[in-house]
Order: sequence, then C-alpha cells, then structure tokens
Amino acid sequence: MATPEVPKTCKVILADTIAKKLLAEVKDLLAKVQSENAAKPTLAAFLANEDPAAVQYAEWSKKTCEENGFDFDLRKVNKENLEEAIVAANQDDGVDGIIVYYPIWPSNQQQDRYIQETVALSKDVEGLCHTHLFNMYHNMRFLDPPTNLKKSILPCTPLAIVKALEHLQIYNPILAYGNRLFGKTITVINRSEVNGRPLAALLANDGATVYSVDITGVQVFTRGSGIRQPRHQVLDKENWGLKDVLPLSDVVVGGVPTDGFRVPTELIRDGAVCVNFSSFRNFDGPAIKEKASIYVPSIGKVTIAVLLRNLVVSMFSINAFPIAPLASSDLVII
Amino acid sequence: MATPEVPKTCKVILADTIAKKLLAEVKDLLAKVQSENAAKPTLAAFLANEDPAAVQYAEWSKKTCEENGFDFDLRKVNKENLEEAIVAANQDDGVDGIIVYYPIWPSNQQQDRYIQETVALSKDVEGLCHTHLFNMYHNMRFLDPPTNLKKSILPCTPLAIVKALEHLQIYNPILAYGNRLFGKTITVINRSEVNGRPLAALLANDGATVYSVDITGVQVFTRGSGIRQPRHQVLDKENWGLKDVLPLSDVVVGGVPTDGFRVPTELIRDGAVCVNFSSFRNFDGPAIKEKASIYVPSIGKVTIAVLLRNLVVSMFSINAFPIAPLASSDLVII
Repeated sequence: MATPEVPKTCKVILADTIAKKLLAEVKDLLAKVQSENAAKPTLAAFLANEDPAAVQYAEWSKKTCEENGFDFDLRKVNKENLEEAIVAANQDDGVDGIIVYYPIWPSNQQQDRYIQETVALSKDVEGLCHTHLFNMYHNMRFLDPPTNLKKSILPCTPLAIVKALEHLQIYNPILAYGNRLFGKTITVINRSEVNGRPLAALLANDGATVYSVDITGVQVFTRGSGIRQPRHQVLDKENWGLKDVLPLSDVVVGGVPTDGFRVPTELIRDGAVCVNFSSFRNFDGPAIKEKASIYVPSIGKVTIAVLLRNLVVSMFSINAFPIAPLASSDLVII
Repeated sequence: MATPEVPKTCKVILADTIAKKLLAEVKDLLAKVQSENAAKPTLAAFLANEDPAAVQYAEWSKKTCEENGFDFDLRKVNKENLEEAIVAANQDDGVDGIIVYYPIWPSNQQQDRYIQETVALSKDVEGLCHTHLFNMYHNMRFLDPPTNLKKSILPCTPLAIVKALEHLQIYNPILAYGNRLFGKTITVINRSEVNGRPLAALLANDGATVYSVDITGVQVFTRGSGIRQPRHQVLDKENWGLKDVLPLSDVVVGGVPTDGFRVPTELIRDGAVCVNFSSFRNFDGPAIKEKASIYVPSIGKVTIAVLLRNLVVSMFSINAFPIAPLASSDLVII
C-alpha cells in the first residue's frame, strides 16, 4: 500500500495575507464609526527627511490609504518647521490622525523623541506619546479608566507582530483574553525603544515568556510564575546569548536592522515559528524553510494596516463612542 | 490609574464541552449518510464481564446513543459464547457497528486480542482490528488506496485526545493538514497497546515530538528532523525520565491507571496544557490549576462521542460513499 505524500513542512505566510484581513476589519469599523456621508478620515503624514525607507513607507501608506477610503495628506516640511506644522495639525479639525516619518535627526534621538511628544494624544495613531507608551508597558488598555471608552493606542510595528501571531494562531483563543500567550516562549532579537522593547513587553503582558536579545545581552520579560502579575517584569540573564534562548523558543522574531545579521538556523527549534520585521532578511530563507513550521519573511504591509486600524480606533475614542456594545473579540484586541 | 484585573490563568475544559461539539458533527454526518426514513444506526455492544468500569462505560454509551439517534443494543453474553455472538453480529445486516467491553480475560491479554480480531473490519468502530492499527501506525488514512473512499478507523481514546487537542487549538490549522502539531512537544505517560502507544504514534504522525513514558522508560516518537519522514520513528532515550521530558513539554497527557500516581507538578512547564485520560486523577488538581494554561481533567465523554463518530464514518465507508465532496476539514481529520 502506498504511503501518503508528505506535505511541505514550512508554511510561508506573506504580510499581504495578514494585512488584507486587517483591512477588511478596518473597513467594518470605519462603517460603524462614520455616518454615511461623512468625509473620509484624514491622515496627515509629515515627511521631514529624505531617508529612502521613510519615502517608501510614505508611498505605501498613501496607496493603502487611498485603496481603503482614507485621505492621505502628505506634508513635506523642513525639519525646522516640523514642530509648528504638527501643532497646527493638532488643532485642525480636518485632521483625524498624525504620523511622522523618523528619523528626523538621526544623530539626536532625543530630538526625535521630543517631536513624538508634540503630537496630540488624541491624534497619535503611532502610539508614541508617553501616555500611550506608559499604558502599554503597564498593560493598561484604556486612556480613561474606569469609564473605558477611549482605547490606548499601541505602536504600529509591535502591534503588527501581535496581529501576525494572532493570525498564525500562536495566540490561543481558548485562553482568557489577556493570557493567550501563556505557555509560549518567544525570542525577540532587537530591543529598540521603538520596536523591540515595546514588542517584548506586549508579548509578555499577554502571558508569554519573552527573551529580549540585543548586542548588550539577554533579558527575560514575564508576568512571573503562573503569570500572576498584572504586567511584565524584566530580569537580566547574565552571560546568556542566542545559543541559550533559541533552542527554547516556540517563536523567533528577528528585527536586526543590518544587512549582515542572520539568526543562526542551527540553534532554532524544529518546528519553530519565525517572523522577520527588519527591512533586511534576518533569516536564511532556504534553510529556515527546512526547519520552521511557519515563516513570515516581512511585516511592513501589516504595519500599515495597523496604522489605519489605529486611526479608526482613535476616532472611536475621539467621539467617545462606546466600545463595549460594538466589541468583537478582534476589536478588543488592539 | 487602576491596573486591570488579572484573569484566571488556567482554563479548565470539561470533556462534555468537547463531546457536545463532536456530537453535533456526528448528527450532521449522519444526516448526510442516511436517507430520511432510514432506521437508526445500530451499535451492538458486547458485555461479557462484570468489570464496574466496563458496566459504567456501557451505561454512558447507551445514554449517549439514545440521545443522539442511535440504537444501542447491549448484548450480555457468557465469555465462552462471545466469539460466536460476534460472528453472528458480523453477518447481521441490522448491526452497523460492534464494540466489546474489555478486559474479558484479564489474565490473558492475548485472548482479548484474539476477540478484537474477530470483529469484522467493516463493523470495527473501535479501530482495534489489525488492519486499522497497521494503517494508524503507518499514517495511512484509507482502507482502499488509491481509491480512498473507505476511511481507516482510529481507536477511540487516542482519537478522543486528538480531538481534544484540536478543540484546544494545539493543532494549528494554519499548517498543512497532517503537519498541524509540528513544533509541539508532548509527553504521554502510558504506553499500553490500547491507548498510550497508538496515541504517541498519532501525535507524532501529525508532526509532534512525543515523549512516551512508562515504567520501563522513555521513548521519543517523531517524524525526524524537519518532519521529513511520512510516519513516526521510535528511539529509546536511555536513562531519561519524567524529570527530563516534562520541562520540555507543551502538552502533558496522563493515562496511568492507578490511584496513587501523580504527575509531579513541579516538573511541568509554566503554561503547559495538561490532559488526563486515566479514570484516576493523574494530576494534582489544585496545584495544576496554578501552573497549567489549560487543564482537561477527564476525557471519557469525548471517547463515547468519538465511538459514534467512528460508527458514522464506517457507515460512509460501507456504502462506499465518496468522502471528498462531503469533506469538511473536520471530517478529514479522523
């Protein structure tokens, strides 16, 4: 008797597939938040640099906005005028959300940080204002407890990876909301303030054991034994490296923004889930497909879908629209 | 600001919940296989012992059959007449499926095995005939390749655990059918020919790394590196024990049929999924709820639902009803 053919062992999931699902959700949400004849929501996008990645991201955002019923208003400004331009957009009722393409001052991250804080909280669809970041790190999901009508906004790339892991069913919907990564071990390679650290915090807040790795070493983010803590704690793992954490990890997220870096395939567990969010390929594509169960080679399109999702969610909040009666499980998980 | 309340960390899933879902499927399948005015399918159940567990199982089966549109025909027979009674049922067109309550000769397992082989292949809804067992171990899903109209039947308790793990979303539907446990590590404590060994084989055939543990030691069942093999291989793990395998395991399945045995909670990984199929409690209930992400305390009701499912699936096969056009993903995964 013939044995059945063995199916391909690695499933490659493209960002486009995940983004399309999110954009369909965004469309439904938008229909709920807006009256029929309302103007399109307007996203004001400030470009104050000539960084090719920023320019490309702006082009993609424009295309995605236009395809999905949003007005994308690109405002090219001089660095020196950026702050005043943002203040004007903050006060302009015709602007629903604001994004800024970073880096603006590559040699002075603190000045970029200053600009992030200039964006009005209610229009910060990138989730970079301190209040949003504070809430994220503290696992608090609303801006207005205990009323809980205004959702706190999560940063786009980390949230895009959360949404990808939901799509891949790494989040187990059998478990209580907020605990759906309990039992999962995840390595995140990158601990930047913009991406890696918030991502590690989000995943640990949802119940995972997260190893956060960068050139300075390894930290573990968890909610403690039995995930009894309401938010993550961080511990240094002295002398640990990828060799210690990759063999333990169900999921490996690569976000190293350099061309030469490759996650060592031989350390990755058979059947692990591998996700790359760097604009460089952090995984050795052909080799990883022989070892991983799921491989997501890029995340950019999901990030843009999340940006539009954040815009619509923040419009719910601006209108103090009650979230609860509308809340699908997907809406709640933002 | 208030931090959100921490939800309970362990989700207890009762067999009843899983069984109800399966019985709804069985009802749908039955509607497809039968014409409207057909007689109820008849399950002939042979009770030739007075084992209290067998008697209780017979009572539960009767209740479940009657609630779900099946005719349960309990035939109490003398051990010495059992073989002839089974042969008569094999030849009786009024009997659609046959089960026998074991053990009949507790001190002579080989004689029980002889009885199992006496049941006609087409009416063996327990999946205990050698052809069914051979196909299961060889990861072959049909009795009639390459036509593939007649599904091979899987043994009830191991299949009940597979169905439970599907319900718990341990099987990842994102992955290709047949590979949906790739990346998962599972410990099965029990390696009996009836339950533990077939279960380890089924789970490994679906892509898991399975540690099979009994008093003689540990074996690992896998489809090899990158699950490239079409069926599982078995390796002895010399000098390994629960202390080595439990900390590695995403899922722990207890099936030790003795009152005193407890899986050592302290060795189980934080957030593991724990399933007990023994009629004794193999896990320390209060302690495991502080550590596991999901706990299934018993599986018996699922086993009975699977028995009815096997009966309906074998009726598909008897009628040489084409499976493909009817196949929901759930039908395929049997």
